[in-house]
Amino acid sequence: MNHQARLTRQYHFCAAHRLHAKELSDDVNRKVFGKCNNLNGHGHNYTVLVTVRGEIDALTGEITDLERLDRLVTTTILERFDHRHLNHDPAFQDVVTTGENVARFIWDELVDAIPLGQLEKIGLIETRDNYFEYQGDRHG
Amino acid sequence: MNHQARLTRQYHFCAAHRLHAKELSDDVNRKVFGKCNNLNGHGHNYTVLVTVRGEIDALTGEITDLERLDRLVTTTILERFDHRHLNHDPAFQDVVTTGENVARFIWDELVDAIPLGQLEKIGLIETRDNYFEYQGDRHG
Amino acid sequence: MNHQARLTRQYHFCAAHRLHAKELSDDVNRKVFGKCNNLNGHGHNYTVLVTVRGEIDALTGEITDLERLDRLVTTTILERFDHRHLNHDPAFQDVVTTGENVARFIWDELVDAIPLGQLEKIGLIETRDNYFEYQGDRHG
Amino acid sequence: MNHQARLTRQYHFCAAHRLHAKELSDDVNRKVFGKCNNLNGHGHNYTVLVTVRGEIDALTGEITDLERLDRLVTTTILERFDHRHLNHDPAFQDVVTTGENVARFIWDELVDAIPLGQLEKIGLIETRDNYFEYQGDRHG
Amino acid sequence: MNHQARLTRQYHFCAAHRLHAKELSDDVNRKVFGKCNNLNGHGHNYTVLVTVRGEIDALTGEITDLERLDRLVTTTILERFDHRHLNHDPAFQDVVTTGENVARFIWDELVDAIPLGQLEKIGLIETRDNYFEYQGDRHG
Amino acid sequence: MNHQARLTRQYHFCAAHRLHAKELSDDVNRKVFGKCNNLNGHGHNYTVLVTVRGEIDALTGEITDLERLDRLVTTTILERFDHRHLNHDPAFQDVVTTGENVARFIWDELVDAIPLGQLEKIGLIETRDNYFEYQGDRHG
Repeated sequence: MNHQARLTRQYHFCAAHRLHAKELSDDVNRKVFGKCNNLNGHGHNYTVLVTVRGEIDALTGEITDLERLDRLVTTTILERFDHRHLNHDPAFQDVVTTGENVARFIWDELVDAIPLGQLEKIGLIETRDNYFEYQGDRHG
Repeated sequence: MNHQARLTRQYHFCAAHRLHAKELSDDVNRKVFGKCNNLNGHGHNYTVLVTVRGEIDALTGEITDLERLDRLVTTTILERFDHRHLNHDPAFQDVVTTGENVARFIWDELVDAIPLGQLEKIGLIETRDNYFEYQGDRHG
Repeated sequence: MNHQARLTRQYHFCAAHRLHAKELSDDVNRKVFGKCNNLNGHGHNYTVLVTVRGEIDALTGEITDLERLDRLVTTTILERFDHRHLNHDPAFQDVVTTGENVARFIWDELVDAIPLGQLEKIGLIETRDNYFEYQGDRHG
Repeated sequence: MNHQARLTRQYHFCAAHRLHAKELSDDVNRKVFGKCNNLNGHGHNYTVLVTVRGEIDALTGEITDLERLDRLVTTTILERFDHRHLNHDPAFQDVVTTGENVARFIWDELVDAIPLGQLEKIGLIETRDNYFEYQGDRHG
Repeated sequence: MNHQARLTRQYHFCAAHRLHAKELSDDVNRKVFGKCNNLNGHGHNYTVLVTVRGEIDALTGEITDLERLDRLVTTTILERFDHRHLNHDPAFQDVVTTGENVARFIWDELVDAIPLGQLEKIGLIETRDNYFEYQGDRHG
Repeated sequence: MNHQARLTRQYHFCAAHRLHAKELSDDVNRKVFGKCNNLNGHGHNYTVLVTVRGEIDALTGEITDLERLDRLVTTTILERFDHRHLNHDPAFQDVVTTGENVARFIWDELVDAIPLGQLEKIGLIETRDNYFEYQGDRHG
């Protein structure tokens, strides 16, 4: 029998950002992004939901090493973004800091560090009414 | 590479309703719907979750025009149901106002107004412990 | 030494209501209450917060008999209002069903049934952004 | 046309547990489970999310008999686990009480009592940042 | 008899900020404010709780004109701070943008525009674990 | 002018407990505490709300040293109770582990370690519907 389960763990960071595409004129940026394009940026309490999927280990009853996952997300994502301005991060020099792109970046950072095929999706809560989700290709 | 993402946006309306099927006798209605069939109705703070799926636009970093989505849901759903009694709406003259049917109605209203294939599902929170979800066929 | 503590317990009911003052004309009602005056009413998931205050009993470590409080609120408030239309309740024939008045009614129902001086306040959450609170005079 | 919908209903129980695998040494248990292995156990407010899927009944507008579902979950799960220590339950004598295993146990208890093919998944919220999900094989 | 009630209404804005006192050296700023002093700022989803207190009007059942309160908070607070960087606001040129000071600023803006004695307190939720409250002197 | 503000900071721990008064017979314990008296205990995700009050510092804009408060609560409360069974703690050998008593214990631990007069109250969320609050005498 198959005992596949999923674990979704939430992480949190507070960051500033501004939606602004360098390739677009100021007028078009304002039109596309509205107040999210305001000059000095704004910010959010972001919640990251990391979902991993796997077989339940018969001995430990777990599908993953939770402590290792926490360390991984803390060192690669939280220490990088928490209490930072996302637009100043190298990852977002030519990429707009939309929820879609932030979720995709987190997926890309984690997918190779998590055992093959385990990462299922990345969720990102930006405001109490806005939730983004990303599922990229699995490498290899 | 494929950069499919999802956005779920929450909307809110307060409405009254009563579960009552015209084709059923009063006794059967009471048996099937219990206190939800009480004569003068009751009500809820409804939360609507609209999930759209799409390719992340390389330029804007977004999968959809959020302002347009807000306008669409506001004019077709919120202005129609907010601070209303659902059973008095023409849509529910012969359809019981269960969470399942309200979610389906919202799907049917939105599916053709949203670019082909983008709408993924409609969620509806009725009480803090009751959540409904509907995914209909995509037309055309 | 004084060991005063407080317990706030939440209860829940779903009800319909309509803001409408019989002494006012339809035009004035519409002006004062806006969409809350819509003809067929609307509804909410109400949360009632009952706060009691008292000395911590040295033996049981409690300030009140919680089971008795639950029975009291269930029989006097929840069974009366849950899945009902508040405007049809005798209590609100000449009283508008605003959050203020609903909270006051709950205070008045509970204050004499709870040991002298124990009831401290009644809170009422009507929507996720609207919270009412009432503290009436203590009788006797 | 196909009118498949889903209902997710939340249930709640408070329980103690301790992560400890009898087949492993005390040292390995401590290494694998960390503070969750502390000798006298700890506890959680668990939330169970039961998701059923089905065709919307044309007459009642519902996909399932909610009252029956409530009775089933109450008698088989809540009365068994609420205000209990999970490690003392016969089900967990040789099975570690991880979120994965608790969710799997709930699936196994419910899947045969719910009409064929209706149960879709079991969710389990253990802490505000930990969510587990289980989808087992359907029998028969 | 006295029918005093309270209404707390929640408002929301997203903003960037940075904790930095101009009178202090960079070293001291870093020591006092830690990561909240990071150079390019960070941000939050702020929730503002405005509590007004008053006599329940015998006719309308309300203690205040809610629509007027919404307009007041929207024009004086939300349009000023939402999707902005607080440190660029004239109000915070010589005042650190701590939760305490933001709550105090909102109090000062609202206290004279709200009927005498009605404003009771300003609450400010900055993160899911940080809540600030301010009650200033009432003028005149 | 007086610039008094309040900060409420939330902390979290998961613990097991059992309501049982040694001075009472088993029958009376069962009658007073119901299922909370079940033999092997149960547990909760506890949230502790620590409220401090003070003058806003003109230079830093803060009423307290938040980092110091975090360290204090972590070392005195969280490291002691998190992932533990409260009834095994020396503090609760002759004191029932009710919410009232846990909140009082936290007050007593913190009140002397926090600058004179700053601690205002301790809140304790035990379940989503149960909230306790304690304000003891200030020493000295």
